[in-house]
This record gives sequence, structure tokens and C-alpha cells, in this order.
Amino acid sequence: MFLIQRCLCSLNNKAELLKIICASGCPRFSTSAKMSKKFKNARRIEGLGSNVWVEFFNLSAHPSIVNLGQGQPDISPPAHIKEELAKVSAIDSMNQYTRGFGHPSLVQALSSLYENFYGRSIDPNHETIVTVGGYGSLFNAIQGLVNEEEEVIIVEPFFDCYEPMIKMAGAIPVSLPLRLKPTKGKDWTSASWILDLEELESKFSSKTKALIINTPHNPTGKIFSKEELQGIADLCIKYDIICISDEVYEWLVYTGRKHTKIATLPGMWERTITIGSAGKTFSVTGWKLGWSIGPKNLIRQMQIVQQNVIYTCATPLQEALARAFWYEIKQLNDPQCYFYSLPRELEGKRDRIIQLLQKIGLNPIIPEGGYFVIADVSVLNIDLSEMKEDGCYDYKFVKWMIKNKKLSAIPVTAFCSKYKKEFEKYVRFCFIKQDSTLDAFEKIIKNWTKKS
Amino acid sequence: MFLIQRCLCSLNNKAELLKIICASGCPRFSTSAKMSKKFKNARRIEGLGSNVWVEFFNLSAHPSIVNLGQGQPDISPPAHIKEELAKVSAIDSMNQYTRGFGHPSLVQALSSLYENFYGRSIDPNHETIVTVGGYGSLFNAIQGLVNEEEEVIIVEPFFDCYEPMIKMAGAIPVSLPLRLKPTKGKDWTSASWILDLEELESKFSSKTKALIINTPHNPTGKIFSKEELQGIADLCIKYDIICISDEVYEWLVYTGRKHTKIATLPGMWERTITIGSAGKTFSVTGWKLGWSIGPKNLIRQMQIVQQNVIYTCATPLQEALARAFWYEIKQLNDPQCYFYSLPRELEGKRDRIIQLLQKIGLNPIIPEGGYFVIADVSVLNIDLSEMKEDGCYDYKFVKWMIKNKKLSAIPVTAFCSKYKKEFEKYVRFCFIKQDSTLDAFEKIIKNWTKKS
Repeated sequence: MFLIQRCLCSLNNKAELLKIICASGCPRFSTSAKMSKKFKNARRIEGLGSNVWVEFFNLSAHPSIVNLGQGQPDISPPAHIKEELAKVSAIDSMNQYTRGFGHPSLVQALSSLYENFYGRSIDPNHETIVTVGGYGSLFNAIQGLVNEEEEVIIVEPFFDCYEPMIKMAGAIPVSLPLRLKPTKGKDWTSASWILDLEELESKFSSKTKALIINTPHNPTGKIFSKEELQGIADLCIKYDIICISDEVYEWLVYTGRKHTKIATLPGMWERTITIGSAGKTFSVTGWKLGWSIGPKNLIRQMQIVQQNVIYTCATPLQEALARAFWYEIKQLNDPQCYFYSLPRELEGKRDRIIQLLQKIGLNPIIPEGGYFVIADVSVLNIDLSEMKEDGCYDYKFVKWMIKNKKLSAIPVTAFCSKYKKEFEKYVRFCFIKQDSTLDAFEKIIKNWTKKS
Repeated sequence: MFLIQRCLCSLNNKAELLKIICASGCPRFSTSAKMSKKFKNARRIEGLGSNVWVEFFNLSAHPSIVNLGQGQPDISPPAHIKEELAKVSAIDSMNQYTRGFGHPSLVQALSSLYENFYGRSIDPNHETIVTVGGYGSLFNAIQGLVNEEEEVIIVEPFFDCYEPMIKMAGAIPVSLPLRLKPTKGKDWTSASWILDLEELESKFSSKTKALIINTPHNPTGKIFSKEELQGIADLCIKYDIICISDEVYEWLVYTGRKHTKIATLPGMWERTITIGSAGKTFSVTGWKLGWSIGPKNLIRQMQIVQQNVIYTCATPLQEALARAFWYEIKQLNDPQCYFYSLPRELEGKRDRIIQLLQKIGLNPIIPEGGYFVIADVSVLNIDLSEMKEDGCYDYKFVKWMIKNKKLSAIPVTAFCSKYKKEFEKYVRFCFIKQDSTLDAFEKIIKNWTKKS
């Protein structure tokens, strides 16, 4: 043990440490282990290995790169939520297990908050579940409700995990694309992306079990109007299917737009799981807390999945989040409430990033919600011949941009499956960024034409 | 909105709030929603709804009950880990997403720590994964590696999630029991529980994919000896299967005993996933962080599952945990290191609880590790005829004890499947409890014979 202690004094020199430990007689095995063929992946994850975030996290990691890629706020979260976490960490009991389906004070806060927006009482214990991010809610819903061979309808472009999650359940993703309604110049907003209801209905079959809708929509920023949602709801009811409504950007709604919860349309509560996210609501994506609201019989299936996957979410984060919610609930009608002040702040950033993109000749599609803007980058006519690898135009463009402009973004075909061709000219830029990041972006934009 | 604000001033009176909101014209739907038959659970979770923790969490919730049930420490976690969380919460970037397979500083700490015990280098990026508790590691391993219809061998009694997790993957749990070697009186330790190797080998078939071993063992406290592990390892190699080694209680080893990692036996590294837990290591079960260490090809499958289930674990908790590890790594040869001071503290609590249980006539089986002790409660000859419900003796006994003695514990058949009969006389008591809790327990014991 003295040997180990001595070695640990210079932990940086790990190779040497190991050399000494191994020389001292500890067993050491070959690093070129013989791999058994039995040890390959289970079939349910066959072909699900690639992940855009893993790839671009690595590509954008260098500090010289201005990263408008992943939806990772670099603004400060509200001071009160950070302070609450610090306070909670000192309470012994708040560092131990809590209720598996959601910490009592958090589900109570969720119920009290959302009752205002659903116009109905929400049973905190049976009509909510707290999950590992919105991500965990999606997983629980799909695993808890969708059988092998059943179909789930998704809209392209979609948040990239929808498709592999459906496949991991042995189910079949059936997709249709948003279609662009021709509009001119400055009027081009995310409302121009239309979900054709006839095309949507053509996707239903006897095997359809669920539909996933995402509003405000990532990556386009589209906010589905009440009329559009009514059309979707009518089909959900007609074909008696479950609606999974991913509303993680629910508060990020810009001037003149309104977010509607599809669960509040007649006949939809009993078939809808609505997903929210602490990461998006309070700009703390690293807390990995989300929730679902829905009828008891659907939430129950998600609870059963949860108790066999993770059992419970982290207590100190849940307690701090509950306190943050109570703080905001008390000022829900005050413009200072973070649910309203954040989109005000982001709207300025949105407008700034749009103007900058326009400066290099792009015509970005103004998002009505969320914190992303997409633009057709093919209009720049960049010579991408140096990008030798195969792949869609947008992937090549982003890799070219990282290399030549030190600017990172996300290719929109990362959110596509069957309809990559329709979207391969688009790139997504994230604007939940502090001014210094946007300043660095502005500098790149100003030098863009000089150097390219 | 003014109406809502006014209502929110009296948030406690929710019924009234809703009445007002609904009277103001918000839509309100029937609470007796028409349930579609299509909306029942997916087949993969059929029959997996019951959960001992959910049941006993509720039964033991009343503050008048002394709870020695769930393995929930009520002692203080080390001060430094709580302080680190408070510090980390103030750093903006530590509240945002981190690397999906483990926060960089944490996987580096895990690698540096465990290299000392494996006697080999551990690649932090490819040979470790950080998960939502040890629980999440078990889930990722089973989902990532085990196909439908394949068999997984487990040892009864087992940590209760093993069986439903295997079933959720469509695989088949194949179990065998620990068998009690007859021993006398005070010599009765958890080493008396024997895994019969011939019986174990009889459970292998062409469909066997993996075996789950748990050492130190919950609920018995058994620490598998190196010789026992070698026998198990020989069978894993002979039948070319994966070993999932649940070692979450690895540090909780009492005087005279030694924990061996099965992965360090020859030929085992390349087929073993070893699972650890921050909750058990630092007495912060509520942090829900765990990890797996293993060869790249096995860890890779767990990573793929993770990126399609939760994507990543909470950043602030991971960073604080990394710092806590570095703190302890630096004093790894000092008796003050928490990895050694905690079992010293617990050994005293173990001995105290054993003496108290002996006072009412029980003969508890002294655990070599972990923080549970089990005892055959049938020797007390309690009249359980008032407990009308069906079920195993231990369930009835615990419910009787909660009702009549205000003392909660966990029935051992909660950890059994095929062999409930063999274990139904045993009840598990948790002793990671502060002195005041043990004092309350002592008071119950002193009054036990008077009242019963």
C-alpha cells in the first residue's frame, strides 16, 4: 500500500505508476483480449451506434471553434436555481433516494404549475412522472406503450433520438416531411413549414400505435398553430392512437406567436403524453431532468418502465428544481418570470444571428420558437470538393465550416431519415449563447467573404 | 392572467383555484376518460408492475415508524462531497450537457482509481461508462448484450431489479439459490451461504448469455471468496459467457474479509462488466450515479443503449463526484480515506444491531460486507393470523411489525423468484443509520417482549 501511496503522489504519470504496480506482482492481462463472437451487441441496438452529438461534440471540442452546434446554453441559468442547488446539497436527506416516479415536492410543483395551462386538476402522483430529461420521458413512453412491429409516425426533420428509440423497441418509424410553402424574402418564417394533413393521414395503418409531435419544433422553430394541431388531433382520435407531444421548448415563443398544448384540445387529454424539460425551461441542460404529464393509464406504463431502468432521478436536483418552480409560479403573471424573460432575451439574440447570417448572403428561416435557426447554405456556392468523404451536403458543409471558418453548427439531415434529400441544404445554428459568443460569431461573419 | 395571479396567492387552496379557473371558461374534460384498449402496456413490461420499494416506501412513510427497510443512509455523507456540489452548482458550464458516456473529469478519476485495483490501465473513454446509478449500468448491460430468448443466470436472493430487467429484454432469468451450510450459533456468518458450483453448472445451456454475480451480496452480506469466484470464473470461461459483476458495496467490507474483483481473475477481464455506485461509495444514494468498468467491446454496447435511453447523466453531480474521488484518491493509503473509514463506522453499527436482534431471540447471520443483516424471524413464533392477506411469511411478518412495533424492514422474498420458500422466514434490516435511529430501534427492542 505504501507503494500505491507513493505512486499516487504523481498521479499524472500514470504509465509509470502502472509499470511499478505491475512490476510489484499484480496480475496483468493482455490488452489484445480474445473477443467472443457471443459478445456482440444485442439485436435491438443493431445499427443504432452513430450519434450526431457524439460526433460533433468531438469535432467542436477545440476552444478555437465558435460552437453554435449543440443546443447547449452558454448563458447563465437564473441565479436562484443555482443557489437552491447549493442550499439543497447541504441537507443530508436531500442526498438520498426519493420517490421513484418523482420527488414529492417536484411533482406537486409540476401539478400546480400546469393546472393553470391545462384547465384541469393534475394528480401529482398518477398524472405526472419525472424522468432523466425529456429524453427519458420519450424512452419511457415508447418502451411502455409501443410493441414490436407497431408503427410510430414521426415528422422530418425530427429530434434525432426519436427514430433509434422507436427502433430499439422493435417498432417501425413511419415518417413524413414538413413541406415548405413558397414564400418570399423577409416573410420567410418557420410557419412556412407545413405538415400536409392528407399526407399525414396516408401514413396511418392498422399498425399505427402513436404519433410524435414536437412544438415548438426542433430544428425549424415552427410553432404548430391551434388549427394545425386540431387537424392532427382529429386524426389521432379517428385512428385511436396515442399522441406523444414533445413540448420541451414550450416557453420559448417569440412575439406574436402562441404555444398550444395538443392535450388541451377536446378528446386529446386521454391519449396524450406531454413532455417538458428542466434543461430547456431553466437553461440547465446538464441537470437532465424532464417530465411527462398525461392520463393515469398512460403515465402508469411509463412508471413501470422507469422502475426497471433507473428506478429514480437525482434527489438534490429534483428538490432544487421544485424550489425554482415555486419561485417562478409565484410570479407567473409578472414579466420578470423566467418563463417570459428568457424568450424576450432570446428574441434579441435570434434577430442578431439572423441579421449576421443575412450579411453573408443567407436567407435564414425566422424561427417562431425554440433556440435554433436553420438556413439553406447551398446559396453560398461554397466549393466543398476538398471534403472527400461521402455524405450529405450539409455534413460536408459543416465540416468545411469547422475547418475553414472555425464555426460549428449542426447539419439538418442529422434530424432526417427518409427525407434527407429534402433537407440536405440546411444547417442549424443555435442562438442561446452569451454576447461574447455571438461577438465571436460576428467576427467570423465579417471575415467570411474576405477569406472564402 | 390577473385571475390566475390572484389565485396563485393562495396556492394551497387548489380545489378553489381550479373551480375559479374552470368557471372562467378554460376547457375542462371529464376525468373519467374513455380508455382505448390500444393504450395498455407494451408486452415487454407485462407483469413487471409490482415493486417492493414502491410498496414499502409507502408503508414506511409515516414519521412514527423506525425505518430499517430501504438501503437509504440517514448518516451524513462526507462533508467534502456536499461542499463540492455547492461549489460546482455556481459554475455555469457545469449546469450544461456533458459528454454522453461520462463527464471527462469523472471517467478520468474512475480510471485513475481503479487502475490500482485491476493492475492494468483503464481507458477512461472506452473502458468506462457513467450511468444513472448501478441500476442504469445493469439496464444498459442487459439491453446492450442480451437478446430475446437468451438466458441470464442469477443467484437467489438477488437485488430485486435483476429479474424484471432480464424479462424486459425478452430474455429468460434462470436462477439458483444460495444454500445454507449448517453452522452453529455465533459462528453463523454470511460465509455460511454457499453457491453450489455443480448446481450452478447445471443451469448453463446453449442459450446462456450472461451471469450476474453480486459481491458483497445484497441482502445476505456474503463476500464471495477468491476461490468461489474462481469456480464461477471457470464456468464463465468454459461456457463462453459474459459476467456482470455487481460490486456496488465493494468498499463495505468488515474485519478479516477481503473483496475480490472477478474481473481480475485470469481470462475474466475480457468478459466482465463490473458495476460500481456513487450512492454506496459516498453514501449519496440520491445522486443516482453509477459506472461500469470493462473491455471496450462490452462497454461500447452499453454506450449505444445509453445514447438511446437518457443520452447523458447530470453534469453538476458528475463533476462533484469526480472531485470527491480525487480527494479520496489522494489519501488512498490513509485510514481516514472514506473508503476505509465508512466500513469502520458501519462495523460498529452492524455489531450493535446484531446484539439488539439477539436480545429478542433472533440469531442474525453476521454479514461480512454491505449494510444489511438478515435474520430468520420465524423463531419468534409471532401469531400472524391477524394478517389476512395472502403472501409469504416474511411479507406478513414485516407488515405485522410495521403495524404492531412501528418498525420497518424488508422481506427477503422480495429478492426471490423461484426459491421464495427457501427464504420466506428471513427479513432484512439495514444498518447504515445514524445513532438516533438505532436508539429508536433499541427502544423498540426493549419494549418488544413486554408488548407482544
